[in-house]
Amino acid sequence: MQIDEVFMREALELAKRGWDKVFPNPMVGALIVRDGEVLAKGWHERYGAIHAEAAALANCLCDPIGATLFVTLEPCCHSGKGKHNPPCTDAIIRAGISRVVIARVDPNPSVAGGGISKLRDHGISVLTGVLEEESARLNRVYETLIREERPYVHLKAAISLDGFLAASDGTSKWISSAESRDTVMHFRSQSDGILTGRGTLFTDLPSLTVRDGENKISPGRQPARIFLNSRGKIPEGWQKEGGQVHIYHNQCCLIPENIKSDVHFCPVPGDSKGLSLPHVLSDLRKKNIHRLLVEGGSKTFGSFLRNGLWDRMTLFVAPILLGEGIPFSDGLEVSTVASKLKLRDMTSSRCGNDVMFNGYREALTCLPV
Amino acid sequence: MQIDEVFMREALELAKRGWDKVFPNPMVGALIVRDGEVLAKGWHERYGAIHAEAAALANCLCDPIGATLFVTLEPCCHSGKGKHNPPCTDAIIRAGISRVVIARVDPNPSVAGGGISKLRDHGISVLTGVLEEESARLNRVYETLIREERPYVHLKAAISLDGFLAASDGTSKWISSAESRDTVMHFRSQSDGILTGRGTLFTDLPSLTVRDGENKISPGRQPARIFLNSRGKIPEGWQKEGGQVHIYHNQCCLIPENIKSDVHFCPVPGDSKGLSLPHVLSDLRKKNIHRLLVEGGSKTFGSFLRNGLWDRMTLFVAPILLGEGIPFSDGLEVSTVASKLKLRDMTSSRCGNDVMFNGYREALTCLPV
Repeated sequence: MQIDEVFMREALELAKRGWDKVFPNPMVGALIVRDGEVLAKGWHERYGAIHAEAAALANCLCDPIGATLFVTLEPCCHSGKGKHNPPCTDAIIRAGISRVVIARVDPNPSVAGGGISKLRDHGISVLTGVLEEESARLNRVYETLIREERPYVHLKAAISLDGFLAASDGTSKWISSAESRDTVMHFRSQSDGILTGRGTLFTDLPSLTVRDGENKISPGRQPARIFLNSRGKIPEGWQKEGGQVHIYHNQCCLIPENIKSDVHFCPVPGDSKGLSLPHVLSDLRKKNIHRLLVEGGSKTFGSFLRNGLWDRMTLFVAPILLGEGIPFSDGLEVSTVASKLKLRDMTSSRCGNDVMFNGYREALTCLPV
Repeated sequence: MQIDEVFMREALELAKRGWDKVFPNPMVGALIVRDGEVLAKGWHERYGAIHAEAAALANCLCDPIGATLFVTLEPCCHSGKGKHNPPCTDAIIRAGISRVVIARVDPNPSVAGGGISKLRDHGISVLTGVLEEESARLNRVYETLIREERPYVHLKAAISLDGFLAASDGTSKWISSAESRDTVMHFRSQSDGILTGRGTLFTDLPSLTVRDGENKISPGRQPARIFLNSRGKIPEGWQKEGGQVHIYHNQCCLIPENIKSDVHFCPVPGDSKGLSLPHVLSDLRKKNIHRLLVEGGSKTFGSFLRNGLWDRMTLFVAPILLGEGIPFSDGLEVSTVASKLKLRDMTSSRCGNDVMFNGYREALTCLPV
């Protein structure tokens, strides 16, 4: 088992080379090993490119017959509309691989154990679960897209040590340190869309752009800017340079004259507590927004948390006290300690003067297989 | 200068040996050095024992004439009522020491540079400020006792990541992890008194005792238990085993039949915002309570913070959200980010699942000399 972990760890390192290039596909790495010798390596390089297993087989300069394939995700066994690659199981069987070691069963319903069955049906020995947690951790976004059928939702906020997003007069610049704000720019650059509620839009007039060290808008792709705003309005004078704008609303609204044509108005149902988040997230997924960064405010955080529609949370906690003000989340509906909302797999690290708390809705150790 | 720091660092290590034994005196260490060789070491061992400089001179087996004395606090130059030791300056002069290197000028008004002047008047070369910050850090309690004329006030709380001491139904057991609660036991064992407000006393019925790993009351000295309770009441059924009890109040009150004779009722002035903290602290100092641990609740924290009557704050922040509940501090009177209350010299570390924030009202780098 231990030697399997050594090779799987190398396969995971290969998988990481696809970071930010394969979305919404998972990152996958593969190694072909015989008698302790690595014959070939492969990884899924970018969206649309060949799969890791096929890449490793293509890179193998000798006949891999009787070799072991290490792969970080169950090989695919299906073809169909929108799929660029033939089933990897077929290529593995044809190549005469005799053993396959897999980190994680593919949660994609088109695979979901089917690849393993097919390999076993052809007499191939299959071992699964080797560094499963590490593989799932690497592909948290993919896991959410597949299992939850919605974008991966990352909540991010800067709060005072006593839990406030802003002071009682609404001021919030700056609660967090420059280092924390730099980290936020990194999060934005890794997102397909950034979402805020109406309050934040009107109070802070946030640009919601990726900017460089000199506060200039970065060249290249900018994440979409998404507003939950039942009345479909954007404030006068709002900074319009940046990514596409999507405004979710549930009222007929007149599009103001002064906004550019790339502002999209998206009607969704809503009730007294706000717009329907499942509808918003489903629509965002259709718009290829796979990684959503939610930047507040209080009502928006409350809504995502109350509905369990979030995956990751990063809070920059500054060593200051405000005593009162705007709480981190409004309407969480927790009334007693026993029903508290827990951050799982929590890590903490210093970010300038702040402490960055990072946690998840689900612990990876509890993942269903 | 660099070699001076090396010896001073050793003197500081000697000083630390007096930890918890010399209060309310400062911890002090001393070294006698000649031609780079350490001739003798000394430190203030316990309250009432001889001073570090005198100890080093007494331990010196050769004649220290022409040697340098390294001492972490300015040597004393006074005698008087309540002082157990003769002035150290006299002993230094008599011994023929030719140079004295001092970390920190003694803030005690009876010294406050007088020791340095006396040494210089006798032709001794004096250098001050070598590792001054480290010396002041070691003696934060002493510095407060002398400069503020009140006990050293350490605020301690366990809060949720969104800043609540308790959920909206008042439950707070347990927000923090077992490791954090163990650390609190350490803080209690290092305190002369533990203070809470009326709300905490009546809601949580806290024992406010030092307990061991099996939750049994530890043998030996227990810190005094102090309640701010304008009506002078303690709840029926409250766990009475533990340290002496002092109840500060501002109303005539009947002492209930069911409480032991070692409960002390202490009248102090008060107004609509609560009891007068300066009066409470002044009285506690008279009772030899030099290190006060304040354990809440919300109103009590607000009162200490609003009045600037605190020195250290330790918050155990648990990775949970409560959404609403009892805030960390009530009545802090901060309305805008610009007037936020900052924790200085902040450090953070993991304590089980929690992050322990530790900070101070004053940064040591800003200390007046």
